[in-house]
Amino acid sequence: MNIIDLIEKKKQKKALNEEEYKFFVNGYLNGEIEDYQASALLMAIYFAGMDIDETTYLTKAMVDSGENLDLSSLGKYIIDKHSSGGVGDKITIMFMPIVASLGDFKVAKLSGRGLGHTGGTIDKFESIPDFNVNLTNDEFIEQVKRINIAISSQTKTLVPADGKIYALRDVTATVNIIPLIASSIVSKKIASGANYIVLDVKWGIGAFIKTKDEALILAQTMVEIGKRLNKKIIACITDMNMPLGRYVGNSLEIIEAIEFLKGNMPCDLKEITYSLIATIISKTNNFKTKDEIINAINESIYSGKALCAFKNMIKNQNGNVNIIDDYSLLGKTNYEYHIKSNCPGYVKNINALNIARACKLLGAGRSKKNEKIDLNAGIYLNKHYNDNVNNNDIIATLYYNNSDYIDEAISLVGEAFEFNSDKQPERKLVYQTIE
Amino acid sequence: MNIIDLIEKKKQKKALNEEEYKFFVNGYLNGEIEDYQASALLMAIYFAGMDIDETTYLTKAMVDSGENLDLSSLGKYIIDKHSSGGVGDKITIMFMPIVASLGDFKVAKLSGRGLGHTGGTIDKFESIPDFNVNLTNDEFIEQVKRINIAISSQTKTLVPADGKIYALRDVTATVNIIPLIASSIVSKKIASGANYIVLDVKWGIGAFIKTKDEALILAQTMVEIGKRLNKKIIACITDMNMPLGRYVGNSLEIIEAIEFLKGNMPCDLKEITYSLIATIISKTNNFKTKDEIINAINESIYSGKALCAFKNMIKNQNGNVNIIDDYSLLGKTNYEYHIKSNCPGYVKNINALNIARACKLLGAGRSKKNEKIDLNAGIYLNKHYNDNVNNNDIIATLYYNNSDYIDEAISLVGEAFEFNSDKQPERKLVYQTIE
Repeated sequence: MNIIDLIEKKKQKKALNEEEYKFFVNGYLNGEIEDYQASALLMAIYFAGMDIDETTYLTKAMVDSGENLDLSSLGKYIIDKHSSGGVGDKITIMFMPIVASLGDFKVAKLSGRGLGHTGGTIDKFESIPDFNVNLTNDEFIEQVKRINIAISSQTKTLVPADGKIYALRDVTATVNIIPLIASSIVSKKIASGANYIVLDVKWGIGAFIKTKDEALILAQTMVEIGKRLNKKIIACITDMNMPLGRYVGNSLEIIEAIEFLKGNMPCDLKEITYSLIATIISKTNNFKTKDEIINAINESIYSGKALCAFKNMIKNQNGNVNIIDDYSLLGKTNYEYHIKSNCPGYVKNINALNIARACKLLGAGRSKKNEKIDLNAGIYLNKHYNDNVNNNDIIATLYYNNSDYIDEAISLVGEAFEFNSDKQPERKLVYQTIE
Repeated sequence: MNIIDLIEKKKQKKALNEEEYKFFVNGYLNGEIEDYQASALLMAIYFAGMDIDETTYLTKAMVDSGENLDLSSLGKYIIDKHSSGGVGDKITIMFMPIVASLGDFKVAKLSGRGLGHTGGTIDKFESIPDFNVNLTNDEFIEQVKRINIAISSQTKTLVPADGKIYALRDVTATVNIIPLIASSIVSKKIASGANYIVLDVKWGIGAFIKTKDEALILAQTMVEIGKRLNKKIIACITDMNMPLGRYVGNSLEIIEAIEFLKGNMPCDLKEITYSLIATIISKTNNFKTKDEIINAINESIYSGKALCAFKNMIKNQNGNVNIIDDYSLLGKTNYEYHIKSNCPGYVKNINALNIARACKLLGAGRSKKNEKIDLNAGIYLNKHYNDNVNNNDIIATLYYNNSDYIDEAISLVGEAFEFNSDKQPERKLVYQTIE
């Protein structure tokens, strides 16, 4: 087999077979296939497409390229969740302890750092003083076994081909190719060892995927790969046009997640969190109806069980549990800036991308791997969708230590808000479920 | 300017501008743009295409990437010729001395070595003992000035971007992309300094380009670039389905070219050679009609002037001029093999690709740069198109030193021949002229 022939075949819009994808993934990983050949193939894939068989072959080859966590000894239901990424998306932080407190479920989550406007889930957890995000595989499995819940930073041995291919895509304008996105996400989820996986596929101005149609194709692709590789994968397509909740940042999102677990649930976060949990848990045999699951979630939150599970995870990962009652232990920025309204009315829209870009300017996100981020920087939205605003009301608060780009951040946030004289209809955030 | 943005732009099927092509060519040449980014852009160009403006910008950027020969001091008409490559294509060897002997024309030819089934023009000249194909620029210009004719191996300083881009295309399945082929050919011709350039664009089983339609697009593209860059470029589209002439190899083709200059002209070689010369010379003001040019060519050949110009070139480039009268001085192979007919009739077809592949197996071509080739190996076609063949007549003779692949070569040549009980119509080899 020869990589030049494979590139030529794809260039002629023909499907590659299972052996050919294995050859590509392994050859690229071990250096027999050069970067310039891989990038030519990826660009050919952009134009020629990949059918679902091909996408499955690629995913399988990626899974097989590295270590696979074997969690089968932990029980029947190993639950995992993935988000394609959004603004203010702290849902994983609530999802994990709620699910872990619902009964016979284990939540084993390996996650990456963010390369975007704010940090990833691992960065957010790292804003908890002393929280250890670098568990060994043994520590990780052992903790899930013992307390049903653990989160750890994904190691390089898990789907190593994905890391190498993603780095190449990033510098060759081949990131936004749906079958490649699908195989990247699903391969990591499968190698992480869960057997029940819910995917939050976000679309909108604040998401990587800009349209519902693309989100739908991505979701369908990933669910179909799951079927072919014998994993229960379900996807929810959710709206990512406005920031989720009121806090955007790293430690700020931890605060909002804890408030949620204490029962103070903004309706947008509640709708998506409840939906994702009900969707995946309904596929297990532990509940008869979705309503039963909703009741169980409510009970878990209002009884404090979910918060307890969260506290337990922090404690087991060496974090400071006192943050739950004293947010000041998370640290704070030197500066804050209040943006005020100069236009009365109801909030009609908050452009999520503007908020995200402002967060990055405040220091909450990174552009390059290993870049240090300011875990306390971020934005609080004093006003959200359909809130009534008077002249001079504070609509947003910016938290920051580095004021280099503060003027630009202020403009972005100010311009993010749109007002209207009347209230708008309720938003529906979970658009469709693919299973 | 950022290469990732440029790749994305082309991926979205948008045209890149002049500055962007300059940025790409210079950035790639100086190493700021990586191989994997260049190959992604080239693949995007395959799918998204390049319009004529873009192709011109790329060509211009390539020309400007290195040294340009300034031949303007040599006279009004500096003639050059290029072939897209064929089997038995020794036309340059006759074209040069004929044109140089027609009057006020200078023939300054820089050429490459072949990467194919047989050698390139430079390899063929190198089969003449002691012939120096490595003139310095000064020697080259001085010789053209003095005797109107010179050939030399193209140096790396001439369009260095082309060498680097071609090497990348070769290993990323991006060779057969018409605007890239056009800019590669034309940039080298322009940098070589001629102002009247005729291109022999070959199509057929024995050519790089398989269909007339593709040849037409390539020819039109190159002629149009010439117009935009103020060079007189004309293209002839010619048939490359059967080998040209009866000899295929390196020294073997020198023999046939000398025979041609002595007046022994196979009709296929004659048609194309005369056409190419008449087409380009008619664009100068030295002749009134094409017929006048044809007469002048006949006169040049039958008076011995063309042969004299050829001899003069050999002498000035240190070659052994005695080869003109004693072909044995070119050397010969240890072995020869006669293939005989087992089927009487008229030759209906000789598959040029089979003949070419057989030549390579006999040692006459190379697969990798700098690979040594056997300059004496090759094939003589004892029978050609429409020749009458009886049972047991010799149809072809194979010349070789290395017999490792002789059986395969014999099969290929045997299978190349097709016979018919009747004669076929005359072939028309020059299909169209684009100017």
